[in-house]
Amino acid sequence: MASLPTPTVGRDTVRALRWTEEGLFILDQRSLPEKINYRLCSTVAEVAAAISSMQVRGAPAIGIAAAYGVVLAARDRFSRQPDDWKASIASDLDLLMRSRPTAVNLFWAVERLRAGIDASGQDPLPALEALAVAIHREDIAANQTIGNRGAGLIAGAAGVLTHCNTGSLATGGYGTALGVIRSAYRSGLQHIYATETRPWMQGARLTLWELQQDGIPATLIADSAAALLMRQGRVTWIIVGADRIAANGDTANKIGTYALAVLARQHGVRFMVAAPTSTIDWNTATGEGIVIEERDPAELLPAFYSEPGNVIGAWNPVFDVTPSDLIDALVTERGVVKHPTAEAMSVLRP
Amino acid sequence: MASLPTPTVGRDTVRALRWTEEGLFILDQRSLPEKINYRLCSTVAEVAAAISSMQVRGAPAIGIAAAYGVVLAARDRFSRQPDDWKASIASDLDLLMRSRPTAVNLFWAVERLRAGIDASGQDPLPALEALAVAIHREDIAANQTIGNRGAGLIAGAAGVLTHCNTGSLATGGYGTALGVIRSAYRSGLQHIYATETRPWMQGARLTLWELQQDGIPATLIADSAAALLMRQGRVTWIIVGADRIAANGDTANKIGTYALAVLARQHGVRFMVAAPTSTIDWNTATGEGIVIEERDPAELLPAFYSEPGNVIGAWNPVFDVTPSDLIDALVTERGVVKHPTAEAMSVLRP
Repeated sequence: MASLPTPTVGRDTVRALRWTEEGLFILDQRSLPEKINYRLCSTVAEVAAAISSMQVRGAPAIGIAAAYGVVLAARDRFSRQPDDWKASIASDLDLLMRSRPTAVNLFWAVERLRAGIDASGQDPLPALEALAVAIHREDIAANQTIGNRGAGLIAGAAGVLTHCNTGSLATGGYGTALGVIRSAYRSGLQHIYATETRPWMQGARLTLWELQQDGIPATLIADSAAALLMRQGRVTWIIVGADRIAANGDTANKIGTYALAVLARQHGVRFMVAAPTSTIDWNTATGEGIVIEERDPAELLPAFYSEPGNVIGAWNPVFDVTPSDLIDALVTERGVVKHPTAEAMSVLRP
Repeated sequence: MASLPTPTVGRDTVRALRWTEEGLFILDQRSLPEKINYRLCSTVAEVAAAISSMQVRGAPAIGIAAAYGVVLAARDRFSRQPDDWKASIASDLDLLMRSRPTAVNLFWAVERLRAGIDASGQDPLPALEALAVAIHREDIAANQTIGNRGAGLIAGAAGVLTHCNTGSLATGGYGTALGVIRSAYRSGLQHIYATETRPWMQGARLTLWELQQDGIPATLIADSAAALLMRQGRVTWIIVGADRIAANGDTANKIGTYALAVLARQHGVRFMVAAPTSTIDWNTATGEGIVIEERDPAELLPAFYSEPGNVIGAWNPVFDVTPSDLIDALVTERGVVKHPTAEAMSVLRP
């Protein structure tokens, strides 16, 4: 079995995904912080269901879970049809790619495994497993690089605000925007603020829990208090992750990110997007081409209003797109792009 | 007993406060929409506790509840010390004025009753009760005037967004910002959006419930989705109430209002404050003089993080101040002030 990424000691102890001989253990993020419950997925269908039901979320973590899901699919298909498994696994890959619509890392990871399948020989399983583990390990390494680069950029900042969860729970480990904050905390960052991040409360439930696990002090605010926080000068940087970045730097991220970027610009607060290059969708020229996922209104609407014929509804877009001209720095493992444009972004192309 | 305001038929059926011979029935807004529970307050202490614990909230409703609270205090003090009750009631008035810090209507209403006490003769109770009921009735009439004036301003708007609850539940009846929306709905307004309004969820729990009771269709959004709503052109006006308005038009209102005003300006969406003139604090020159109420972090922080020594905290400001230069129109019962300034506001002075 391929060697597995294990949590580093100290300030990064949480892992969303644990790959074992039994299958993929996924920490069910819906029940955090109250319950720490790793669910075993031993089939690709279970992995796809865990992604679509948001047991695992965060673009990089979704991609890694999908990679392991392909390994589980290959085990099953290869054991049943060793001569014809490459044809039959196509539907499993489709299933994974339909599990969430926005995270480009999902498609990127599945395509990397698809190439591995195409290239595989007599006994494909060790190579595919090694590929999934490599994707996982590379993500952690990328995040550590992103963290250190980002921390260098914000050196001396007294306070920062982050939105949603972009930490070890949202990635292979360490985190993107939260990785930057983790690194900056080691360098003396004093005040870390996190939004609640309605409607799923990933800030209150996940970011704060992760920081608590690692002993990093942080302060929760309501999403709607961010503007006052900026006006009072309590933060000088806003640092977020990304679910998909267009080729010109326009960034799709958790609903509310766009508002923070507009408010940051109005208050002289700087705005950083931290993400691995696997989050960049080079096939999408601008944010105009990114379709916003709208989820079930019932995720937002109190059950009280849900009877049929009710005049009360809800609109539940879960992402928005921040235009690149509101982004001061895009920090990736391949380098930092200040004031991203299509031209400036080209240094990040593979 | 003085005649009591009763709900008008049709599109305004909800009342936060019911004054009866037994005392003041206060609809406990903390358990809405699931439970409709009117609690009887028969002492001034019970009224003060209902205000501070937010069973009743909304600046105008707080003022009216306090007025009835003074009547209950007068009944008690006068029955026990008919010769000396005017001295002993002072502590009751103080108790009411300490119950919430921001709503200027609270101080305004208590001062009106104090003047009534000073002027009262042999049997003070009928006059004081009539004064409290008059404050209640005047508020409803003011709101109907505000509603019709505001609806005239936004004539033709396809969609509007409101924040927090400013309806019948927040006032004597009809509502301020929600009164404008109520009037505009009668004139053909199609799309009404309401924010959830964290952390107390007054939008999700109160505004939507009130609109549902009156059969007015509306759509809930997360606070953080407001910027996307504006960017997509779904709303052309944002309409909010006020907890306190400085003499230059700077407006303290529910946390998140300031962000909406900044975002509205950036998106070419217009911004209206609707409030009775009793919400204007002529003794405060600008918003700089308004102290922001910060409530218990526990109202925001999940219980999970509440053990002592935890590194996780919360910052819970419940109001913010919107500078008058972001306000396109201030709508009151005495008239509309476009682009409020200290000078322009002077037409509203008593």
